[in-house]
Amino acid sequence: MQPEQIKKVNIKELARLLSLSTATVSKALKDSYEISEQTKKKVQEAALKYNYTPNPYASSLRKKKSKTIAVVLPEVDDNYFSLAIKGIQAIAEEKGYHLLMYLSHEKLSIEKAIIDACTSGRVDGVLISISKESNTASHLNQLIAEQIPVVFFDRAMDVFEAPRVITNDFESGYYAANLLLEKGCKKPVFLSVSSSLPICNLRAEGFLKALTDAGFKGKANDQLIYCDGTDAENYAQVKKLLKSKKRPDAVVGSVERLAIHAYFACQELGLTIPKDLKVVAFSSLEIAPILNPSLSTITQPAFETGKKAAEILFSNIEKPGKVKASETFILPTAYFERGSTL
Amino acid sequence: MQPEQIKKVNIKELARLLSLSTATVSKALKDSYEISEQTKKKVQEAALKYNYTPNPYASSLRKKKSKTIAVVLPEVDDNYFSLAIKGIQAIAEEKGYHLLMYLSHEKLSIEKAIIDACTSGRVDGVLISISKESNTASHLNQLIAEQIPVVFFDRAMDVFEAPRVITNDFESGYYAANLLLEKGCKKPVFLSVSSSLPICNLRAEGFLKALTDAGFKGKANDQLIYCDGTDAENYAQVKKLLKSKKRPDAVVGSVERLAIHAYFACQELGLTIPKDLKVVAFSSLEIAPILNPSLSTITQPAFETGKKAAEILFSNIEKPGKVKASETFILPTAYFERGSTL
Repeated sequence: MQPEQIKKVNIKELARLLSLSTATVSKALKDSYEISEQTKKKVQEAALKYNYTPNPYASSLRKKKSKTIAVVLPEVDDNYFSLAIKGIQAIAEEKGYHLLMYLSHEKLSIEKAIIDACTSGRVDGVLISISKESNTASHLNQLIAEQIPVVFFDRAMDVFEAPRVITNDFESGYYAANLLLEKGCKKPVFLSVSSSLPICNLRAEGFLKALTDAGFKGKANDQLIYCDGTDAENYAQVKKLLKSKKRPDAVVGSVERLAIHAYFACQELGLTIPKDLKVVAFSSLEIAPILNPSLSTITQPAFETGKKAAEILFSNIEKPGKVKASETFILPTAYFERGSTL
Repeated sequence: MQPEQIKKVNIKELARLLSLSTATVSKALKDSYEISEQTKKKVQEAALKYNYTPNPYASSLRKKKSKTIAVVLPEVDDNYFSLAIKGIQAIAEEKGYHLLMYLSHEKLSIEKAIIDACTSGRVDGVLISISKESNTASHLNQLIAEQIPVVFFDRAMDVFEAPRVITNDFESGYYAANLLLEKGCKKPVFLSVSSSLPICNLRAEGFLKALTDAGFKGKANDQLIYCDGTDAENYAQVKKLLKSKKRPDAVVGSVERLAIHAYFACQELGLTIPKDLKVVAFSSLEIAPILNPSLSTITQPAFETGKKAAEILFSNIEKPGKVKASETFILPTAYFERGSTL
C-alpha cells in the first residue's frame, strides 16, 4: 500500500470541491470586496486543507507584470478595424502597455487557439471583436478563470457576459431602410455578412422592422440576404443578385466590403448607381466622398470605439470589476448622405 | 550610515561570482541532466546566498520561448501597411508565433522606445518600416548587440545593415514621370511625404531624372514638393499648390494619402481630374477602380512584401546569419492605368 501523498489541487479542482465558480474562488483568495466574508473564510480554509498553491507564473502576471494586452480581430483589411486599432493603440501607449495583435480570420478554431495563448499568462487583458463563427463562449471562460479582464468591441457575444462597446445597430438598420423607402425604393435588400453575429442580426432586424412598419408584405427571404462566404464568394453572390430578375433597387451593406462588392458588380454589369441601384454601407471609409459615385454611409465611431474599449479594459486591469460585466456602452452612428442614394 | 541592503543579483552576476558560464548556471538551476550534482549544489547554494531570484519571463525568452516577433510600423491607416501586416501575420501564424504590433507615429523618439522594449527580451525578431524621422541607427544597434534579427520592409535605412525587402523605387518614379510626359503634361510635380526616407528620395530622383532626360529645364524646387507635415498640414499644402498660379498639370503622390489629398482638394476647388490635373499614386488601394475618377496607381506588392520580410526574419531566427545583412530583395511594382491619367 502506498503512503498517502500530499496532492496539490489547482484552482479549478478547488472550485469544484467547494461547488463554487473558479472566478469566485479566485476573487475570494484575493480578498475581493465582491465576495462575502463568509465565502472568503470557507475558501481560505479549503485552500489550506486541500493544499492549494497558486501558479507563480500566472500569479506574477496577475500582478500585471506582462504589461501587455491582446487585441483579437476577425480581420485587419477593413477600414473599421484599422481605425479601431489606432484608438486602442493610443490608450495602450498612454498606459505604457504593449499590444499583441491577433487575427482570427473569422474562424472559431483560430480564435480558440488565440485565447488559449492569452491564458498562458501572456497578457493582462483581452479586447476582442469576435469571429463570424463564434457562437460558443467556452474558450472565453478560461479568461474569467484566470481573472483576465475581457472587453468586447464592435462584435460582441450574447452568451458571454463582459463589458461591451457597440453601436445602436437596430436603430441604424431601421434608419437606413426608412431612408430608402422615403426615396421611393420598392425593393430594398439588406446584405448581411453573417447570420450569427448579433451586430449583423440587429442591423437586419431594424431594417426589416422598418419595412414591416411601412406595410411591406414581401418575404424576409427576399429582403435579407446572407453573404457569409469568402470574399470571392460574396462578390459572386452580390453580382448574381444584381443580374437576377429579382434585382433590388437598393442595398444596405452590413459591412463596407459588401457595398464595395455592389460597386464593382455594377461597374461590371453596366448598372448605374444610384439610378439603377441605391447603395448605403455601414462603413468608416474616409474616402467615401471621392468614390464614383460618393458613398452614403452609416458611420461608426471606430477610433472612439477602440479607445473606449481600451479604457474600460485598463479600468478593470487596474481595479478588477470596476466596470461591471453587464455594462454596455453604445456609441451612436452618424449618417452621411452622399451620391449613392440621391 | 545606512544599513546594508539585501541586493538581488541577476544570473550574469551569479555566474561571474561562481566563475561559471551563465548557461551552466541556468541549467543547474533547472536541474538539468547535463550538469553534475556537485555543480548543481554549488549553484543552488550561491543562488540562496546572493539572493538570486529567477526572472521567469527573461529565462523563457532566452530559450526563444517568447515565440513572439515585433512589427514596427509608422502608421496603420495606410492601405499598404494593412496589407503588409496580413502578409506578416500569415507567416507568423504558420510558424506558431505571436505578433506584437507597434506604431511609431512617424516619430524617432517613439521608435527608440519601441526598440528598447524589444531588447528587454520580449521578442525573437523585429520587422521594421522606419519612421520619417529615423536618420540614425543607434537604437537598432541594441538589437544587434542582443543578437535579435532585424529585417526592413518598405522603408529601410541606409545607415544600418540588415536584410531589406523593398521595391524598384527609382525605376517606378522614372516610369511615372515618363508616362505623364508622353501624355503631354508640361508641369508635372512629385509630391514627396519625406525628404529623408530613402524610399521617397529614390522615387523622387527617378521622377526628376526622367524630366532631365526629356530636356526639362525647370527648377527642381518646382518639380519636387515635400509634404512632410501632419495630415492636415499636407492637405492644406496640396490645396494651396492647386490654387496657386504655379498649379501643376499632374501630380505623382509618393504615398496614397497625398493623391487622396489631391482628389479632395480638386473637389473643393472645382477642378476636374484628369482634365485640369492628372494624378498617379504609389498605392495599394483595392478600391482605386471605383474612385471618381478611377485612380492610376503604381502598386507595390504589399502582402508579398510583408510575407517575404517575415520569411527572411524566421530564417535568421532559426539559423542566425542565414540571410546576410547586406542582402536586398526587390519586389517590383506594377502600373495600373486608370481614369485619373486619361
